[in-house]
Amino acid sequence: MDSPTTFALTEHSPALWRVTFDNPPVNLVDAAMTRELGALLTRAEESDTLAVIVFDSADPDFYLAHFDLSDENESKRALAHPEEIHPWTRVLTRLMTLPVVTIASVRGRARGAGSEFLLATDIRFASREKAVIGQFEIGMSAVPGGGPATLLPGLVGRGRTFEILFGGLDYDGALAERYGYMNRAFPDAELDAFVDDFASRVAQFDLHTIRDIKHFVNLATKRPDSELKDQMDAFWAATNRPAQQHVAKHLFEAGLQQRSDLERDLPQWVTRFQCRPGADGE
Amino acid sequence: MDSPTTFALTEHSPALWRVTFDNPPVNLVDAAMTRELGALLTRAEESDTLAVIVFDSADPDFYLAHFDLSDENESKRALAHPEEIHPWTRVLTRLMTLPVVTIASVRGRARGAGSEFLLATDIRFASREKAVIGQFEIGMSAVPGGGPATLLPGLVGRGRTFEILFGGLDYDGALAERYGYMNRAFPDAELDAFVDDFASRVAQFDLHTIRDIKHFVNLATKRPDSELKDQMDAFWAATNRPAQQHVAKHLFEAGLQQRSDLERDLPQWVTRFQCRPGADGE
Amino acid sequence: MDSPTTFALTEHSPALWRVTFDNPPVNLVDAAMTRELGALLTRAEESDTLAVIVFDSADPDFYLAHFDLSDENESKRALAHPEEIHPWTRVLTRLMTLPVVTIASVRGRARGAGSEFLLATDIRFASREKAVIGQFEIGMSAVPGGGPATLLPGLVGRGRTFEILFGGLDYDGALAERYGYMNRAFPDAELDAFVDDFASRVAQFDLHTIRDIKHFVNLATKRPDSELKDQMDAFWAATNRPAQQHVAKHLFEAGLQQRSDLERDLPQWVTRFQCRPGADGE
Repeated sequence: MDSPTTFALTEHSPALWRVTFDNPPVNLVDAAMTRELGALLTRAEESDTLAVIVFDSADPDFYLAHFDLSDENESKRALAHPEEIHPWTRVLTRLMTLPVVTIASVRGRARGAGSEFLLATDIRFASREKAVIGQFEIGMSAVPGGGPATLLPGLVGRGRTFEILFGGLDYDGALAERYGYMNRAFPDAELDAFVDDFASRVAQFDLHTIRDIKHFVNLATKRPDSELKDQMDAFWAATNRPAQQHVAKHLFEAGLQQRSDLERDLPQWVTRFQCRPGADGE
Repeated sequence: MDSPTTFALTEHSPALWRVTFDNPPVNLVDAAMTRELGALLTRAEESDTLAVIVFDSADPDFYLAHFDLSDENESKRALAHPEEIHPWTRVLTRLMTLPVVTIASVRGRARGAGSEFLLATDIRFASREKAVIGQFEIGMSAVPGGGPATLLPGLVGRGRTFEILFGGLDYDGALAERYGYMNRAFPDAELDAFVDDFASRVAQFDLHTIRDIKHFVNLATKRPDSELKDQMDAFWAATNRPAQQHVAKHLFEAGLQQRSDLERDLPQWVTRFQCRPGADGE
Repeated sequence: MDSPTTFALTEHSPALWRVTFDNPPVNLVDAAMTRELGALLTRAEESDTLAVIVFDSADPDFYLAHFDLSDENESKRALAHPEEIHPWTRVLTRLMTLPVVTIASVRGRARGAGSEFLLATDIRFASREKAVIGQFEIGMSAVPGGGPATLLPGLVGRGRTFEILFGGLDYDGALAERYGYMNRAFPDAELDAFVDDFASRVAQFDLHTIRDIKHFVNLATKRPDSELKDQMDAFWAATNRPAQQHVAKHLFEAGLQQRSDLERDLPQWVTRFQCRPGADGE
């Protein structure tokens, strides 16, 4: 595994690793990060000593902004190869079956693919004040591609899944905890100490037991990987339609993927660029 | 679709409709309302522009009281035709797969079929002080017919489902939110503005994306329609037994389906008319 | 059924029984209690009048401490007979399908098999201040044997299940309610009155309806019994490995299964005896 460029890997011990996302300007989930996370998972799968990986962010404002949408050819490539599983889908499904405890420590914005990454970890702890989580994709006229329609119901139930996906709004740490979107939210000043204590504790435990627990919980809760593939395929199909391309063009012009007001308040900005005839009586 | 008599339909725009239940004296779910909701669903299914339907009530005390139990022949008809799917079951299952966002805005009592209606919508917002929700049917010696044994677990989990169905008690907005029975409860003065903002927002979004999300969430969460049919059949079987007929007779004499103290506090009144030998040491 | 020695059975009425655990020094789930619970279930299954069983504890500090681990031969016996279903697994699966409402009223510690017992009842009410619930087994290098990997997700979701099983920590009544691990937590002074009222109410209701509700909720929520068998088999396999035997030996020397500081604060004590090479940089 070459040294990663989109995150820092700190090996606190052979049992406990920390991945700190650091991919300026806003921690986009781009092709490089996807590839580097894939390589990290391979290393983790091969380890005989690893018990726990904590995922946090070097940027207090952005945990993981969302998926990189700047490659205009990616849609065509994906649609031309329907038999292939998209690399981002593969990262998510591998993460769910990795025989290691994965913990997200969330401060800043985690929208779209950022939220999907959280949903694929085992345990999610959040800053009550500074976590901002959501699936804004409906505002870009696209079904979310990383499977939240499949992953959210097992955490927040059917009704709140519909609210999160249809509304495309942000959820702060406190509300995300009430919904079960996050395991628990802590006052920002207490988050790091809690996560460090919890991760260090679990890193002491027996690896065979960790594998057994992951296996049995997955047996009772994990949905077929094909559901995630189908949602990713539907996402790329959406990016091939004018409704998505119209919003995307305007969002890029207004600051998408830059350290902008638009990225800070994305769910509000998307409503400026909706174009469906007949909406709201127009 | 003839003009409905049990609710008002307001078309705020081609994308956003509002259904306001108005079926005095207590907003019973009766044969007329069931038929009119069926016709509404047909119109909604045929629309090329509809994105969102909000369901609220003209009566601040009763959202939907419960199913109309006054037709003594309905039980015989239902039992004589076990191959038929009951019209109420059909409304609920069509609502769950309608490719439109359905939002319940709940103020007042929603018990029995009223609660079942809520459970079949996508998203439920409630007045913290004025929503009163529950499945009182066990107090009438009948399993609930509209499928809450199937629909509640995906919202509140197995344990709280048992509590709600075995206890037959009322849940106010705040407790219903804690359980996940409602998505969220708002101070009564804030409910309408929140729902209006949320519904107007979603009504702007792409219809194709709404269909995709509904499809994928249903794939991951919707149970077979046959479970709802079996529960409705079991309900009608119960109404054919003396234990149910005994309680029903006394409840009708004491004010059932009238604007009465009994309808306001139904879960307490049912305990006056239990007749099982051996209960409570008698 | 001979008179039980590990709990008191009080028949408040033919419809309402109370089981009060009383197995000093710490209410262990031992072979005698398992056998006596089996006999109780047989009596309950045969009753024509029973509607509700409440399970509480005579010891305010210990609801059910955990499984009795003092029989060193039990592991060998279990592993020699992989075709057999362990008696504790059988108690749990019978409890889940018993056509009677089962209610746990929880004050004091319920860890390991104590928590598993709770998870197999229908409804769980807890003392906000005095309930202490958890699955500490990972701290003994063993997957929990009574199926919480299968039973917890239906109450608390996938993410909180991972947290509870990987962390092996205690949950107080308030947090257990927030997670859905308990139906509801009450101020300690109010718990008994609430449970008595709720149980007396339900005990008046129609037995046929109780059976219908239990049947339909199980149909929608109950996982295959084989998942519980597989987890119990994996637990006994773990007790045959040095990692488990090492921790167990040290815990017994330090006060396990006695009325000790160790039993009061078990999740903290287990970390003193972890021996995995490589953990925490050692």
